Amino acid sequence: MRVEELLELLANESRRRIIELLSRKPCYVSEISYSLRMAPKVVLEHLEKLEKAGIVKSFEEGRRRYYYIEKPLSLSITITPYRFVTNVSENTLSADEVFREIRELFEKKSTTVSDLIRKASEIERKITALQRSVSEFIDSVIERALSEISRTIESEMERMVALELLMGEERVESIAEKTGLPYSMVAKILEDFERRGLVERRVENGKTVYKLKMEVV
Amino acid sequence: MRVEELLELLANESRRRIIELLSRKPCYVSEISYSLRMAPKVVLEHLEKLEKAGIVKSFEEGRRRYYYIEKPLSLSITITPYRFVTNVSENTLSADEVFREIRELFEKKSTTVSDLIRKASEIERKITALQRSVSEFIDSVIERALSEISRTIESEMERMVALELLMGEERVESIAEKTGLPYSMVAKILEDFERRGLVERRVENGKTVYKLKMEVV
Repeated sequence: MRVEELLELLANESRRRIIELLSRKPCYVSEISYSLRMAPKVVLEHLEKLEKAGIVKSFEEGRRRYYYIEKPLSLSITITPYRFVTNVSENTLSADEVFREIRELFEKKSTTVSDLIRKASEIERKITALQRSVSEFIDSVIERALSEISRTIESEMERMVALELLMGEERVESIAEKTGLPYSMVAKILEDFERRGLVERRVENGKTVYKLKMEVV
Repeated sequence: MRVEELLELLANESRRRIIELLSRKPCYVSEISYSLRMAPKVVLEHLEKLEKAGIVKSFEEGRRRYYYIEKPLSLSITITPYRFVTNVSENTLSADEVFREIRELFEKKSTTVSDLIRKASEIERKITALQRSVSEFIDSVIERALSEISRTIESEMERMVALELLMGEERVESIAEKTGLPYSMVAKILEDFERRGLVERRVENGKTVYKLKMEVV
């Protein structure tokens, strides 16, 4: 994927909001249109651009076409007094591998300046791949946690609230804001979760917070 | 700096070309206008936006205002099936520090899922800072090399060619393309460099390449 194209797609606020929504769950056009208060025609145009660029994918289920984000994409941009560098991750790398190469770089055994700069630029690219590895790790933790919770989860709304809890949101207000669900609905879901033993309610600094009780397996 | 603002600024091709030019050397308006074949008024508008956002700075010298890039800026964006994350580096971090934390993360001692995800997200941010550290390292190597060469360098054009050689460009064509200098001028500068013992000319795969002879100090 060309970085220029990516930048142009991400520069549009509506498209960023659509990506943000899809990065929480697959959605169909009228669902996005309703959530973001945008005309379905406009939503569809944005989705088509995003799909053409490979940022989102889609599948049909019944009479609906769902749009979703299939796999992590990491982009990095560095602007310095000497260089303007952009990288898109094509693959992932282990932390150990990148670490070893950075160590070697900083030891800089006798080498020409150009070779050193070439090696360092290679490492800049690899750090983007490392970022993607960490993202995949986080996603795998989220995935496993969600699949474990899913047995006890009863609706799409509950799944959205559970995802925010996983991401570290703890208060009714912030979860309502992030999910776009009404405050009262979030409050009710959290009470249900507490009753079912999924979350623990505490008061911290005079504020009510909810914490998922899941341990890492 | 807001990531949204950065994305909107970088989405414009003319602005990217201006940044690319400034990431090689400080320039004044009519110089950019001439190099990029853009109206001075348009160049100035872009520069004002970039300066307002803190991406470029300027200083006056004589009757000219020079625009330049002061320090590295790293931006990273990750889009996954669960998250849309953007980071701008505010500082730098040593590789050792980041890797120690990544190691600890992957060992994931007994902790809650939310804590693990929070820690991993923190590391995602730190990787952006690591990217900036590597950039600063590369810049410091370039800076030292340039200051060493500068004693023997006689013009701004020679400096531009030397910078491309440092970055690993080896052929007249590619250096002419990157610097925007005429082919014949680049060829002449490289011949001069060879005579002065700065570069070595070789033939590789039937093509003439020039290599800087500097060792890392």
